[in-house]
Amino acid sequence: MTASASASASRDLTVTEVRLTPVLVADPPLLNTQGVHQPYTPRLIVEVVTAGGITGLGETYGDTKYLELARPLADRLLGHRVDDLNRLFAEADQVAVDAARVSGQVDVGGLRGVQTADKLRLSVLSALEVACLDALGKSLGLPVHALLGGKVRDAVEYSAYLFYRWAEHPEGVTAEKDDWGAAVDPAGVVEQARRFTERYGFTSFKLKGGVFPPEEEIAAVRALAAAFPGHPLRLDPNGAWSVETSLKVAKELGDVLEYLEDPTLGTPAMAEVAAGTEVPLATNMCVTTFAEIKEAFTRDAVQVVLSDHHYWGGLRNTRHLAAICRTFGVGVSMHSNTHLGISLAAMTHVASTVPNLHHACDSHYPWQSEDVLTERLAFEGGTVRVPDAPGLGVELDRDRLAFLHRRWLDDDGALRDRDDAAAMRIADPSWTQPAVPRW
Amino acid sequence: MTASASASASRDLTVTEVRLTPVLVADPPLLNTQGVHQPYTPRLIVEVVTAGGITGLGETYGDTKYLELARPLADRLLGHRVDDLNRLFAEADQVAVDAARVSGQVDVGGLRGVQTADKLRLSVLSALEVACLDALGKSLGLPVHALLGGKVRDAVEYSAYLFYRWAEHPEGVTAEKDDWGAAVDPAGVVEQARRFTERYGFTSFKLKGGVFPPEEEIAAVRALAAAFPGHPLRLDPNGAWSVETSLKVAKELGDVLEYLEDPTLGTPAMAEVAAGTEVPLATNMCVTTFAEIKEAFTRDAVQVVLSDHHYWGGLRNTRHLAAICRTFGVGVSMHSNTHLGISLAAMTHVASTVPNLHHACDSHYPWQSEDVLTERLAFEGGTVRVPDAPGLGVELDRDRLAFLHRRWLDDDGALRDRDDAAAMRIADPSWTQPAVPRW
Ligand SMILES: [Mg+2]
Ligand SMILES: [Mg+2]
Repeated sequence: MTASASASASRDLTVTEVRLTPVLVADPPLLNTQGVHQPYTPRLIVEVVTAGGITGLGETYGDTKYLELARPLADRLLGHRVDDLNRLFAEADQVAVDAARVSGQVDVGGLRGVQTADKLRLSVLSALEVACLDALGKSLGLPVHALLGGKVRDAVEYSAYLFYRWAEHPEGVTAEKDDWGAAVDPAGVVEQARRFTERYGFTSFKLKGGVFPPEEEIAAVRALAAAFPGHPLRLDPNGAWSVETSLKVAKELGDVLEYLEDPTLGTPAMAEVAAGTEVPLATNMCVTTFAEIKEAFTRDAVQVVLSDHHYWGGLRNTRHLAAICRTFGVGVSMHSNTHLGISLAAMTHVASTVPNLHHACDSHYPWQSEDVLTERLAFEGGTVRVPDAPGLGVELDRDRLAFLHRRWLDDDGALRDRDDAAAMRIADPSWTQPAVPRW
Repeated sequence: MTASASASASRDLTVTEVRLTPVLVADPPLLNTQGVHQPYTPRLIVEVVTAGGITGLGETYGDTKYLELARPLADRLLGHRVDDLNRLFAEADQVAVDAARVSGQVDVGGLRGVQTADKLRLSVLSALEVACLDALGKSLGLPVHALLGGKVRDAVEYSAYLFYRWAEHPEGVTAEKDDWGAAVDPAGVVEQARRFTERYGFTSFKLKGGVFPPEEEIAAVRALAAAFPGHPLRLDPNGAWSVETSLKVAKELGDVLEYLEDPTLGTPAMAEVAAGTEVPLATNMCVTTFAEIKEAFTRDAVQVVLSDHHYWGGLRNTRHLAAICRTFGVGVSMHSNTHLGISLAAMTHVASTVPNLHHACDSHYPWQSEDVLTERLAFEGGTVRVPDAPGLGVELDRDRLAFLHRRWLDDDGALRDRDDAAAMRIADPSWTQPAVPRW
């Protein structure tokens, strides 16, 4: 084979195989309004292989309802090219979704907003899209951001994602340990924030709230404001509050909050809060699909949309979302759930291309001690440098992938679906899913 | 140099030169509410050359106000890569626009909607973006549609763009002749439509109205409906009517119109018409910039946006616009002004990638007897096949370019800025820009 024939062969972009590998990754005992993170969280790792011998990586939620859709959706990629992405969305519509998975209500397990068939499909499709972009970039010798029109910044800013947490998971549970210690009061939160700034250089802070009564969380944010004067602060109770409580918190913290995130559930309630405060409202719960945008934007219910490229359907859809936000004068930033380095790389690439990204992105990544990469991405000065290597610029560690997959295989099913309330019941058998609004 | 080093050199995507060539192209005496097309219309041809020796083509409006911006904007491309496009928009904001060019009012010369500095910049930027995508595609061996995520259809449907017209430009004017003959009444319009179907296979029809009193244009559309029963019909008076007249026409033609295009000027008046009829309203005049979307969409003033990739800022912005329309339940299709094959190829590529393109696109191309391509694009069955060759899939004819540029150089300035009213005054010295609404 000549050099030129070989170059041409490596450029065959046809998808010949899609590997789907569910894993369980260690997660610390982070608290939220529904309970506590389980010791391990499911993620799905996607590998798209081209006829040219290039492998692209993607990652998404790994709960059973996503896994059920992953194979039929992946099969629709086979025989098509990794640059043939627009077609996928209509194809995906033809994949049936189990009605039992689609409540139309807010996802109780993951605080991820409404559950619809389309959103489930998009959450899986996004991992396939990212894997295709990674493979395409590697095949062409271009970074993913170049496939999205090029970065407008060389590094993407992230916020410190502060959690109330226990030092360890409850006794009797298999879990990895970390050295963060507990944080269940203002002093613990400030201490956690200090370590975040020391280790990663973060300059803005988000506290996951909805865990303790609002007065305690107000006190924690006040303590952060005192410890880090002038730094952007956010509080996210995941919709745990009534409109009245939301307005009260907004009033008390209005002088220090960059934004208040999902203080209450649903567009009508968010609109009511928005109308009563100058504090911008951010969301990754009431606007999580394109179908929810029109009502929310015409009612001015939200001022910042926190995109999650997983459930918005990928990096290109995230750019569409950002364009819509720009057009309607709504801010945009990025949401995060427990995720690994593939998704952090994907977030960083797309974030680098969005001009109207005026808030630091969220990321759970510092909480994840495990990954499937040969080399983890690093936060420096609170930012991740945008990779300029071909594709996402990350490399899969097959041994780690096999190890984490083995953990998933060995699980009896209890951890294959994230259930923060179930995890909480181990510590507190009387715990039930709190009624909303909780306060 | 080895084969591999040579391949790598041809892949150097850095822009080393941008050639800007204004041309004058023959235009038939097509009538609209402001006057008649001049015998020649200015267009700007853009060539972006990479260090790898690849040349990409772009095309946009060629009036002086665009030419003034083309050089400073092109200079901002030099030394950057053709895949580094997102950056360009913020760069463009720094290019000063002569305040005299920016009325904030509807563009009297071109029926192109509001005139703003941003829109002028985007109209030029779009040609640079298309040329970069053409060069990028050629460098990578990929068609432009693949750079936009891939086509979702293999051919793009266009409508027959019917015009009231004279057989020839007024005596004493230098002009190219064509064989279309006059069309100034219902019979002439139907005859023109027949020839369009015979020559190109178009199955939907748009009549440029606002030329004769509404009753005459209603009669023409009725005649089309009788001659082509069941075929989609559109009427576009370019905002010449009052709300009352618009509603009257909508009522009389409601049973045969696919949509009514810009019956009246401005979002408030369009919203009033929209509220009073079931006939969808399309526009390329009241929504021509992202800044105009929020008001128009929240007031349900328009049901179909006719994108013009030139003034929306390129193919990628056109995809954003389509995503916004999809999100707000607004239809999308494509507007056209006098243009050559480079722009038709660009329109066809982007249109092929937009899933929610549910109306045939407009194109003046059949009226253009001249082009700068070695081979013109063909309409078959009313469609243009989406090119799969690298880049746009078209090739520049340098002799033709030189010839049409020579015409521009030789012009005394009278035709370098499109002025349909001035052209009309040659036939009717008493003609002035009609007051709006005209009827
Ligand atoms: Mg949140
Ligand atoms: Mg029009």
